[in-house]
Amino acid sequence: MPEKTMAIERAKAAADPNKKRPVMLAVAGDSAAGKTTLTAGLVRTLGSDRVTSVCVDDYHRYDREERKALPFTPLHPDCNYIDIMEQHLQLLSTGRSILKPVYDHKTGTFGRPELIEPREFIIIEGLLPLHTELARECFDITVYLDPAEELRREWKIRRDSKKRGYTPEQVIAELEHRESDAAAFIRPQRATADIVVRFAPVEGGPEEGPLSATLLLRPTIPHPDLSKILNDDASEALHLKLARDDDNKPVDALHVHGQADRARSQAVERHIWKSLGVAQDLPESLGVINGDARSEPLAITELILLFHMIQSRIRVRGEEPAAVP
Amino acid sequence: MPEKTMAIERAKAAADPNKKRPVMLAVAGDSAAGKTTLTAGLVRTLGSDRVTSVCVDDYHRYDREERKALPFTPLHPDCNYIDIMEQHLQLLSTGRSILKPVYDHKTGTFGRPELIEPREFIIIEGLLPLHTELARECFDITVYLDPAEELRREWKIRRDSKKRGYTPEQVIAELEHRESDAAAFIRPQRATADIVVRFAPVEGGPEEGPLSATLLLRPTIPHPDLSKILNDDASEALHLKLARDDDNKPVDALHVHGQADRARSQAVERHIWKSLGVAQDLPESLGVINGDARSEPLAITELILLFHMIQSRIRVRGEEPAAVP
Repeated sequence: MPEKTMAIERAKAAADPNKKRPVMLAVAGDSAAGKTTLTAGLVRTLGSDRVTSVCVDDYHRYDREERKALPFTPLHPDCNYIDIMEQHLQLLSTGRSILKPVYDHKTGTFGRPELIEPREFIIIEGLLPLHTELARECFDITVYLDPAEELRREWKIRRDSKKRGYTPEQVIAELEHRESDAAAFIRPQRATADIVVRFAPVEGGPEEGPLSATLLLRPTIPHPDLSKILNDDASEALHLKLARDDDNKPVDALHVHGQADRARSQAVERHIWKSLGVAQDLPESLGVINGDARSEPLAITELILLFHMIQSRIRVRGEEPAAVP
Repeated sequence: MPEKTMAIERAKAAADPNKKRPVMLAVAGDSAAGKTTLTAGLVRTLGSDRVTSVCVDDYHRYDREERKALPFTPLHPDCNYIDIMEQHLQLLSTGRSILKPVYDHKTGTFGRPELIEPREFIIIEGLLPLHTELARECFDITVYLDPAEELRREWKIRRDSKKRGYTPEQVIAELEHRESDAAAFIRPQRATADIVVRFAPVEGGPEEGPLSATLLLRPTIPHPDLSKILNDDASEALHLKLARDDDNKPVDALHVHGQADRARSQAVERHIWKSLGVAQDLPESLGVINGDARSEPLAITELILLFHMIQSRIRVRGEEPAAVP
């Protein structure tokens, strides 16, 4: 009898310590905003045995052929099973496995579904993970990647022509085609994120030089207290500025300089890392792009997210909170 | 934050009358036991706009190629995502949609998943819907189809060689191959069903003649009171006998004669139908097999299940219970 089902499930979950709910991080953003690179860096640092990472761009309602007859792009919520995505996020957030649909972005068809089992941390990346309230409520930390639009276009053209077999002209046409859905459904998610990360070329710097990053740290979650480390020594690497967000609400804007000296950046990184009470040394895996290049702004972004993931884990597991610096 | 997610979901479900939970019927049994025929009869009678029917034999963990290297048959629970099947049954039983995996039994591979939306009634048929306690608790009514084994073999050989492209020899070999898993995992479900239906040739009757049916009505759900209609007139069509089940527990055994006069059977059918308080006439769709042949025992089996489905619906919707005869 269904009345008893949920009670049994709750009792089972309570009795099974492995069913403790995982920490949920959302990484939202438009196509080629850097979601996969950021996620890969976090997985590398925490270890793939502790992190489940899931891309939620597979909940398409239609395959590529069917979409040709339809007026919207895959960015449109009506083009996706948003309610099933919500359901799967809820299940994962309560420590349960899901059978996730798999959309083959090469062939544009659906493949064999994949069993996703939650680990300590779950990173959900994709185009629309923050689109609905119910989905947002599943997360402990929400991030929106908001690179300068010119930079994102450059990244998308480079990736889609190198790895997905399109010509640059095709990618540019697709960007135009998607623009109105992106404006209507992707970019509004920015307003709901705890952290907004904006990579941009250094002002007045060389075109191919290192990028800077600005992290908006919204007061929706308890951020690390950076005031102690942001002394004169650190200011070459990063500075914190009280600002007003687009909606006029107060926000901390942490600017990480692209051309900072690596030693100075690393001093800041070590400080944040130490504040987590983690025994190990600062991981070498931070800030690595595509296995070779390295970005200090990316490293610091990852570190702030690791701070939140580890703090959330302490909260979730009901242990004593670690000292915040 | 996940703590709030379930509360939101509950509030939404309570506010939305369409989310009232459906009536859940399980039809379990071995391959070719008659599950699809029985389900089709119920859907035809209730109307496909009111019934969602789902086959749960698609939750395979491995495709046909992978299974060749494995020691078990698709009947083995380890060969299936039983926990995901349980989860989907729970979701459906609380009025939520699922994205069901689809296994193509012709090619032995996985296809595009299918959105299943609950209607007033949900019929779940398959090999293992009653295998676990959690799955069983999702149902209002549970049925196990238990045809005489010789009859089931005959049905399976006929169907698989006519419709699935196997030779009779291949089907017989497959039956042998599956026997130990069937004994270990399929047949034990019989003990958990509210109703066990056994079709068998009429004793001493012609080999190709009409079949009789014995329905074990276990006192686990409130069956219709048949005592009033089982008078001398009816006894030619069916009789009820107090019996002991395999486990020695008391049970009502309703025997429906295969060679009963159709007019007499229909008098009984009309009586059960009337007791449901349904305005319409006795549906013509009852007892139809493959669109042409007709079986009175099948009609009466369907009618008893319809009785339970409609009674459960009254309970679920919180309306006044209809008078039970």
